[in-house]
Amino acid sequence: MSLRMSIWLAIFIHIYSVLASDSDPVQDFCIPRSEFSSLFVSCKNSSLVTVEDFVYSGIKSPGEFSKTGFSSIPVSVSVFPGLNTLSMSFVRADFEPGGINVPHYHPRATETAFVLQGKIYSGFVDSRNRVFAKVIEQGEVMVFPKGLIHFQMNIGDSQATILGSFNSQNPGSVKIPSAVFGSDIEEEVLIKAFGLNNKELAKLKKKFLPTS
Amino acid sequence: MSLRMSIWLAIFIHIYSVLASDSDPVQDFCIPRSEFSSLFVSCKNSSLVTVEDFVYSGIKSPGEFSKTGFSSIPVSVSVFPGLNTLSMSFVRADFEPGGINVPHYHPRATETAFVLQGKIYSGFVDSRNRVFAKVIEQGEVMVFPKGLIHFQMNIGDSQATILGSFNSQNPGSVKIPSAVFGSDIEEEVLIKAFGLNNKELAKLKKKFLPTS
Amino acid sequence: MSLRMSIWLAIFIHIYSVLASDSDPVQDFCIPRSEFSSLFVSCKNSSLVTVEDFVYSGIKSPGEFSKTGFSSIPVSVSVFPGLNTLSMSFVRADFEPGGINVPHYHPRATETAFVLQGKIYSGFVDSRNRVFAKVIEQGEVMVFPKGLIHFQMNIGDSQATILGSFNSQNPGSVKIPSAVFGSDIEEEVLIKAFGLNNKELAKLKKKFLPTS
Amino acid sequence: MSLRMSIWLAIFIHIYSVLASDSDPVQDFCIPRSEFSSLFVSCKNSSLVTVEDFVYSGIKSPGEFSKTGFSSIPVSVSVFPGLNTLSMSFVRADFEPGGINVPHYHPRATETAFVLQGKIYSGFVDSRNRVFAKVIEQGEVMVFPKGLIHFQMNIGDSQATILGSFNSQNPGSVKIPSAVFGSDIEEEVLIKAFGLNNKELAKLKKKFLPTS
Amino acid sequence: MSLRMSIWLAIFIHIYSVLASDSDPVQDFCIPRSEFSSLFVSCKNSSLVTVEDFVYSGIKSPGEFSKTGFSSIPVSVSVFPGLNTLSMSFVRADFEPGGINVPHYHPRATETAFVLQGKIYSGFVDSRNRVFAKVIEQGEVMVFPKGLIHFQMNIGDSQATILGSFNSQNPGSVKIPSAVFGSDIEEEVLIKAFGLNNKELAKLKKKFLPTS
Amino acid sequence: MSLRMSIWLAIFIHIYSVLASDSDPVQDFCIPRSEFSSLFVSCKNSSLVTVEDFVYSGIKSPGEFSKTGFSSIPVSVSVFPGLNTLSMSFVRADFEPGGINVPHYHPRATETAFVLQGKIYSGFVDSRNRVFAKVIEQGEVMVFPKGLIHFQMNIGDSQATILGSFNSQNPGSVKIPSAVFGSDIEEEVLIKAFGLNNKELAKLKKKFLPTS
Repeated sequence: MSLRMSIWLAIFIHIYSVLASDSDPVQDFCIPRSEFSSLFVSCKNSSLVTVEDFVYSGIKSPGEFSKTGFSSIPVSVSVFPGLNTLSMSFVRADFEPGGINVPHYHPRATETAFVLQGKIYSGFVDSRNRVFAKVIEQGEVMVFPKGLIHFQMNIGDSQATILGSFNSQNPGSVKIPSAVFGSDIEEEVLIKAFGLNNKELAKLKKKFLPTS
Repeated sequence: MSLRMSIWLAIFIHIYSVLASDSDPVQDFCIPRSEFSSLFVSCKNSSLVTVEDFVYSGIKSPGEFSKTGFSSIPVSVSVFPGLNTLSMSFVRADFEPGGINVPHYHPRATETAFVLQGKIYSGFVDSRNRVFAKVIEQGEVMVFPKGLIHFQMNIGDSQATILGSFNSQNPGSVKIPSAVFGSDIEEEVLIKAFGLNNKELAKLKKKFLPTS
Repeated sequence: MSLRMSIWLAIFIHIYSVLASDSDPVQDFCIPRSEFSSLFVSCKNSSLVTVEDFVYSGIKSPGEFSKTGFSSIPVSVSVFPGLNTLSMSFVRADFEPGGINVPHYHPRATETAFVLQGKIYSGFVDSRNRVFAKVIEQGEVMVFPKGLIHFQMNIGDSQATILGSFNSQNPGSVKIPSAVFGSDIEEEVLIKAFGLNNKELAKLKKKFLPTS
Repeated sequence: MSLRMSIWLAIFIHIYSVLASDSDPVQDFCIPRSEFSSLFVSCKNSSLVTVEDFVYSGIKSPGEFSKTGFSSIPVSVSVFPGLNTLSMSFVRADFEPGGINVPHYHPRATETAFVLQGKIYSGFVDSRNRVFAKVIEQGEVMVFPKGLIHFQMNIGDSQATILGSFNSQNPGSVKIPSAVFGSDIEEEVLIKAFGLNNKELAKLKKKFLPTS
Repeated sequence: MSLRMSIWLAIFIHIYSVLASDSDPVQDFCIPRSEFSSLFVSCKNSSLVTVEDFVYSGIKSPGEFSKTGFSSIPVSVSVFPGLNTLSMSFVRADFEPGGINVPHYHPRATETAFVLQGKIYSGFVDSRNRVFAKVIEQGEVMVFPKGLIHFQMNIGDSQATILGSFNSQNPGSVKIPSAVFGSDIEEEVLIKAFGLNNKELAKLKKKFLPTS
Repeated sequence: MSLRMSIWLAIFIHIYSVLASDSDPVQDFCIPRSEFSSLFVSCKNSSLVTVEDFVYSGIKSPGEFSKTGFSSIPVSVSVFPGLNTLSMSFVRADFEPGGINVPHYHPRATETAFVLQGKIYSGFVDSRNRVFAKVIEQGEVMVFPKGLIHFQMNIGDSQATILGSFNSQNPGSVKIPSAVFGSDIEEEVLIKAFGLNNKELAKLKKKFLPTS
């Protein structure tokens, strides 16, 4: 019995990421079951669903800042179950003065980024390597087309904040520096791809490889 | 020639609403042509596309308020061409104290509503007529599932503002009071459907029928 | 064991509404398992599937009529498992003379309505509040675009019947009178939205609130 | 000028089949322009749209019967413009006693078939060559999963009629006998595929090749 | 316990075909659980996923040849779990000289066929019964549009091989000769549909009915 | 007239990339019009379509090799019109010994890569920066999930060749080195994102910035 229990618990951990794909829903909503029995891919009995399932309060203040003066709180179905099957999610991003959101892309969504405060240099690169970039300010919105690399930098004197919205319940995020230099891609590939020598690559990898 | 010109101009007016459906894009982006030749459903030559096509600055301040103390600025591809084919759009909504956003729904999108300022009583009705409603405050987010009736009321003492995001480039909006009583639905249907008498219906229609 | 059994039974009740979304199927068909073990989202072993799974006989005669002289039998995957994953469903609707189908909409489907018998005043309201309505007779078909409010009234002397088809396995149905006045939307919202006074609202709610 | 005119007319003929794909619409509806200028893929100005665009009256009676005692009137966007972009269409099929609808499939849609009158032996073949077939009668419905071969035969004494609904605005129809023996597939392929000799194939082809 | 076990094993067998539909994925990948506990529709814990899940080595050489000199190895998610939720699959097809791939279609996918070696007469039939056919050679590619009947014959002197790719994780395949004459479609339907007499039909069925 | 002509020619150039999105087709196929009149988004009259529209012969031999010993010939609807609306395309990639396909991703498609000849070290990085990589040989297939960074290197002694297939008619390709260092991303962003100094960045940019 305890073996089975542990198998079930393992499933429990991964259940949220499993559920639907981003297509039209077939019911009003589907709050994933979070009790023990939620191992099965199923929606909560609607009588157990409450308004709290549809409200998220976790982005009233910034998250923890990274070394690059950046903080982000992604809100997908794993923390906000009400989004499940509805093909939407969002993120709060904060920037210290000079802070940057490194070049990254979302493999599964377009993003609209609304500036809550501050002045942010913001841009994306299309698949012909052309950059579309500009300083955007409070109340302005920029759209980052699906799957294209984009980046942001706070060029103001005070903290800047962005609310990003996505058209997927799990847009994913690939940060270029760590995906390329912080993963274990064969060194010869990187040396040839970026025209680096061994020492240069080692320096770059040192910054991004996770320390154990 | 002038006849043809006028035909073309007629097309020109409607071109924006014609374009794509909300499915995966097949190019990085597609800025609709806005010059004379844009009558054809086609994207601008990418060399003519600029970063301005991807930034929107028109919701820095509220729109005009209605009698119900409500103002909304919907931002879809018709005013923000960069959204074209990307299945996203958004809206800024402002509420005077006590102002309401009447019960309405978006036939083609789910909405996530982020409170920029104020305290807003906010809710939706599922297809079994159950209401999920709550006061949400600055920094909180509520999700309104696709196609369900929702409503909002500013219950604070000062102006309230919401940023709504949609997963369609043209979500549409059906406001229940004016769609039902401000359209020309046969009176007998409404009398029977709502259990009204002629006088009661006349009073309701008077409020919502457009004056000419 | 009996606790677990009861958990499983609770799941069993909701399993039908959980399954697929309305996108392309990846197998010929998928009849949901209806035995005890069907708690898991899975298709019946195809050797257990029979032609009965693909035929529905429950709409040969009208359902029970409501006070408005209307009866409807919606047929979705919950009663006709063969529809599962196939993005279609249908409804039989019957009208006594003068009977109405109150203004309503389907949040997840377009409907084509075929008149089996009778003369039916039938229409919909677009999102600019324009009504498109007409009397349709036996053998005629009207299309109600996805998510738009529509209504019908039997204006003939004898019973009328419609067969409605949907392009979703679970189109949903939101009836405006009961969704607005028969749910528990905060009264102040309704008073302001419809320009009613307390007494008028109370009268309307009395008609639509479920009696306990 | 007359050359260009003729080019435009050629386009005019094909415009209806060109339009949207079967995905979520981005406007309430889109009635294709049918005037001369409709060569462009565009929707009618909504002020020119009338209720007639959403009602179809052409299937009140059967079409012409074929030699196999079968008649069908497919109704897609080419004859019922209101269906455009809405991912639905339908067909009226009539059968003389003994009449058959030959084995065929719809490459782009699932079909639900409602029996308006008569007794019809009706079935489909899944991709493992298993047949699911049964006699269905007035008021019964059978579902034919997307892309699978199906067939029908009137086994009653009087005329039988079916209303088929599809979840595509242009489901297409491939009739097996004429697609295989009435097209110009290289004879050696057919001889080997069906194990026929030259004479047998010639006899089969004679029946299905279009006569000129 | 042993009853339950057997129920679970029954589920286990069918789990692979159940999973997602062909729409946008919501996670990077989803390797179906293949241990005992994989009865639930869920993805493997990503720490258990290895590169072997994304590589397939089973089509280095031809499969077994049929009487028509044809061999095919379809590779879908059932044998290559890495394809799960990614809407792609493929097939290796080999032809002895004169060997044919009988007229067939894939109900859920378009196919692009690349000639690895040999000269192959290859074609498809559109829904108006027009044939598009041609000899294609090593290094050439032909596209077979979704759901249309197509066929191939090796017209060279040596073995020919094709790599077919599909845009569905489970395209399905309906072979016309066996689906029509090797299934149990009521004989009267076939006699009338193909204009055969009893003897001719019996001869055809004998070739395609599975022997027991 | 000559002004208009030039406008039309400008449109002509871009018409191919404009057409459909990757959703279910609504006709058998749609060969884009390539004559003068093809400015309009429309399909060729089917009587003008030939089998040549569905066959591609341009990848029988490698393209030109880059400095990294790599050559690729992407085949999308712009060169193979038969793919239009069918959500598929493909690429031939050749590698000299030691040649690499630099880390890149396709924003709009999953890829299945079949090794035609040679031994290729091949891998991808998931969105948690885990690498899945392996040497694959002739006849083996690797799948690169939608939107994830992947790379390849010929580790054999002779030329290697891959056939990649995509589930989009225009998958796009973003090569990380040139998208990041060969575009005009603000230098301060790159310096901070990759922890480079000015000199190191200048060296990297020099390699990837297009020379004029």
